Amino acid sequence: MAQQISEVIVRYAETDAQGVVHHATYPVWFEEGRSDFLRKIGVPYSDWEQQGYFVVVVDLNTRYLAPAFYEDRLQVVTRLERIKKRLMEFSYQVFNQHQQLLAQGSTRHLIVDADKQPCALNGEFYQQLCSKLEQQQEAGND
Amino acid sequence: MAQQISEVIVRYAETDAQGVVHHATYPVWFEEGRSDFLRKIGVPYSDWEQQGYFVVVVDLNTRYLAPAFYEDRLQVVTRLERIKKRLMEFSYQVFNQHQQLLAQGSTRHLIVDADKQPCALNGEFYQQLCSKLEQQQEAGND
Amino acid sequence: MAQQISEVIVRYAETDAQGVVHHATYPVWFEEGRSDFLRKIGVPYSDWEQQGYFVVVVDLNTRYLAPAFYEDRLQVVTRLERIKKRLMEFSYQVFNQHQQLLAQGSTRHLIVDADKQPCALNGEFYQQLCSKLEQQQEAGND
Amino acid sequence: MAQQISEVIVRYAETDAQGVVHHATYPVWFEEGRSDFLRKIGVPYSDWEQQGYFVVVVDLNTRYLAPAFYEDRLQVVTRLERIKKRLMEFSYQVFNQHQQLLAQGSTRHLIVDADKQPCALNGEFYQQLCSKLEQQQEAGND
Repeated sequence: MAQQISEVIVRYAETDAQGVVHHATYPVWFEEGRSDFLRKIGVPYSDWEQQGYFVVVVDLNTRYLAPAFYEDRLQVVTRLERIKKRLMEFSYQVFNQHQQLLAQGSTRHLIVDADKQPCALNGEFYQQLCSKLEQQQEAGND
Repeated sequence: MAQQISEVIVRYAETDAQGVVHHATYPVWFEEGRSDFLRKIGVPYSDWEQQGYFVVVVDLNTRYLAPAFYEDRLQVVTRLERIKKRLMEFSYQVFNQHQQLLAQGSTRHLIVDADKQPCALNGEFYQQLCSKLEQQQEAGND
Repeated sequence: MAQQISEVIVRYAETDAQGVVHHATYPVWFEEGRSDFLRKIGVPYSDWEQQGYFVVVVDLNTRYLAPAFYEDRLQVVTRLERIKKRLMEFSYQVFNQHQQLLAQGSTRHLIVDADKQPCALNGEFYQQLCSKLEQQQEAGND
Repeated sequence: MAQQISEVIVRYAETDAQGVVHHATYPVWFEEGRSDFLRKIGVPYSDWEQQGYFVVVVDLNTRYLAPAFYEDRLQVVTRLERIKKRLMEFSYQVFNQHQQLLAQGSTRHLIVDADKQPCALNGEFYQQLCSKLEQQQEAGND
């Protein structure tokens, strides 16, 4: 499926007393990877919420392989692994400027409505999403 | 006016690569001082939002005197300096377990409604707030 | 193995625009659960770093079952699942004030030295750790 | 003095339950403004720490004028207001994509050594800093 490469420069506030990036920062970068991914295919997550769809994280897995440091220039590679009307799965890889793999992870998401109840994307929105994904893939970005 | 002393144990995630607490953590502790203050006088901020009043920060000042470290046991002293129907002012002092003053600050807040428009607390809620404050002060907590 | 129950009151800064706690906050609470656990058995993590041992996260898994809200009073139950000279495993459960399970997770950690190289705890420190754990368990806290 | 314009896209994790960016996020953006500023003139802050100079925040002031929202594309304008061998002052303005001023602030910093004791930049490093600043200004970036 399609993928998105996001650039991140490590912020000082993201480091901890070990002198490296705190591990709870990676889920935030993963989320920015997803945000970039959805903006890139033309359905920014802001639009989802305006349409009454909220995407919630139900599963997070991260494996940490090597530390990131302040001012490192990272690439977050985000892949959409699966999309259904009620759920989505993404995977992530974080590389530093030396092409070293620092971390990899995955998230699973449910679609809920404004009352936090599970729901399905309506047909029109789901079709739009799928067709934008296809265009993106045809454009060679996978 | 009344004051509230909140206990905080420094979290590892709150430190940065200098080995000390990152300066952007202090406004978060100030906010917890305010939350504790309002809970203590019996009008928790959750109730404000349920009544349609949102308190937004319009001014923040912090002076940093000495660093805090992981596992330090801090006291955040929160004082309500001023309350009107449309605004509030608080001041804060942060001490460590050696009674050393680490930081002091102040915040100014406006009351806004659900549409983020400035508004005044209604008479009933404002009276309740003032009378709870008085009870608190009579109880010797100032 | 031994367990530790930590109390957390949800901070406003920990919420996001969905009105619930942001998912990247849970690893921070897990870490505080570990910190409490180690303080409780008498070997606070500050001591580890002073002795030259740094514990790094190599694996994080979290399953999110229900949202947490501002001012919720949570219990983070931390269990030490495994300890060796070179690695540790913990598991976590987060409950709200209604005894509802909100999230569960686990972390795996390696011991590294000041140069971030994997190392083993020395015999004395490891024995101290194990004997403190035993005392704790005999004291009925498991 | 010289200024730097940094682009920031608002992260979901930076929002809070009011649906807007949490106020403690702005000092983090200011810090990124400073980081960009120093990278731009060729003396990235990583180099400072490698040379044994640590810049600590001693004063932070922020005035909040209007809220920022998830996915807003912001410009953080950072100006160096003053530089001495022992202290620095910066000011900041944050604009959104509609050229609306959301916040303005300032920070004051002391230079400390690895033991957190106040110190002065050595002559060579200070001269390098000043000459890079001049080049930058001559290049029309102020």
